[in-house]
Formats: sequence, C-alpha cells, structure tokens
Amino acid sequence: MSELTPELDEAVSFDDKGLVCAVAQQHDSGEVLMVAWMNREALAETLASGQVCYWSRSRGKLWRKGETSGQTQKLVELRVDCDGDTLLLRVDQKGVACHTGRRSCFYRAVAADGSLTEVLPVTADPDELYGA
Amino acid sequence: MSELTPELDEAVSFDDKGLVCAVAQQHDSGEVLMVAWMNREALAETLASGQVCYWSRSRGKLWRKGETSGQTQKLVELRVDCDGDTLLLRVDQKGVACHTGRRSCFYRAVAADGSLTEVLPVTADPDELYGA
Repeated sequence: MSELTPELDEAVSFDDKGLVCAVAQQHDSGEVLMVAWMNREALAETLASGQVCYWSRSRGKLWRKGETSGQTQKLVELRVDCDGDTLLLRVDQKGVACHTGRRSCFYRAVAADGSLTEVLPVTADPDELYGA
Repeated sequence: MSELTPELDEAVSFDDKGLVCAVAQQHDSGEVLMVAWMNREALAETLASGQVCYWSRSRGKLWRKGETSGQTQKLVELRVDCDGDTLLLRVDQKGVACHTGRRSCFYRAVAADGSLTEVLPVTADPDELYGA
C-alpha cells in the first residue's frame, strides 16, 4: 500500500514529529539488531515493498535500509505495541545491521561498575560497505 | 551506584528531555517484551538494584517496573547501541510485561493489507495485577 489503512493509522501513535519508534529483531534467532524511527511514508513503503524503510532523523529523508551497504532487512512480521507508540519489526537481516560492521548495534555491554566492554565482533568492513 | 559513572554517562546520549529509549528483552527466549524510557536516575537505580526502573513520561516519576503488579524485571545484562541513544535491557521477566496481562506489549500483528490481529493470549488478569 502507498498509504496506511485507516485501521493501521489509528493503531499507531505517531509523535508530534510524525514518527514512531521501531525495533528490528532477527525473526529466527531473536537478536535485537537496532532501533530507528519511521514516519507514515516509511511504514507504508515497508509494508508495500516488504523491505524495511526508516526515516532518517539526521538526514531528514527516507532511509531504505541497505540501499547503500546492501545490508537489507526483509520484513517477516510487523507488530504494534499496546499503546501504539512502538513497532517491532521481525526481519531477516542480510549481513550486518550496524554501520560499524557488527551484526547488531547493541555491541557494548555495561558491567555493574559502569564500565563498557565490546561483546560483538566486527564481521564486515565498513569501508567496503560504504566506500572508504 | 547512585550516579552514573563518567564512562557510562558519556556513552549514553540522553535526549533534550534527559531520556534514553530502552528495549526490554527476555534474556533466554529472546522475546522483545516492551519499550520504555529511562533518565539518568532510573538507569543508575537499575544498575544499583539489579531490578529495572524506568522513567514514566505520563506520570513524570520513576517507574519501578512491577512495584504495583509484582511483574518485575531482573536485569541480566545491559547493552548500549552504537550511537548511545538506545539501551537494550536483557532481563528475566516475572509473569507478564504488558499492563493488558500479556507476556509482551507487542501482541498485535499487522498483515500486508494493514489489518491487525492479536497473536498473544492474556495470561494474567489485569484486575488482579492492578486492583479492579
């Protein structure tokens, strides 16, 4: 669909900037890959194409995930939370989700003393994904 | 700790309201349970107590998850994403995460035609959790 259906538009609570938070999860392993934002257009395009499209807040435009890097997210299932202000995207992630070349953006673990440790390896070269 | 360490405070990008987005995931099954928000105080309390504490935007106060309902979240691992604006809380959820009595807040699936279907059962009576 090119626009959201009335049922879906009513179920999703876009914020005062017209955005909704979206969590991407690998559908079979359960890995939480990343969190980003969608506007109505990004959500409609994602449902129409079956490929995840976000709204880039920093660039102020649609962000077709993987368009440059090839690290696309195929939508497997879309869920809406109880109050409609967050989406869960169950996806099939090709390669890596993180621009650092790691599978997930959540690669730093925080110990009880507040120190951080990297717990996921770099498995793709960012220079190759995005050009040096 | 009662305050964040400088290392952690630098790693986490709190927004202009002093908040950071937090995704709660059941540590063993991988279920994404809910998404909520934390301020510095909530994050520090979570790390100090080992029990997840959010910041309630609607009530404007600390939200010790499960304080009323008994449906607590024990912190197993805390992760920070690449740009520091989202936390991943790997938790052990007691009972249900959702105020509707469902295990996860993400209980509505969206079909390709935009229609919504409930895909998770109610397993706890909200009236019993919160008082009728």
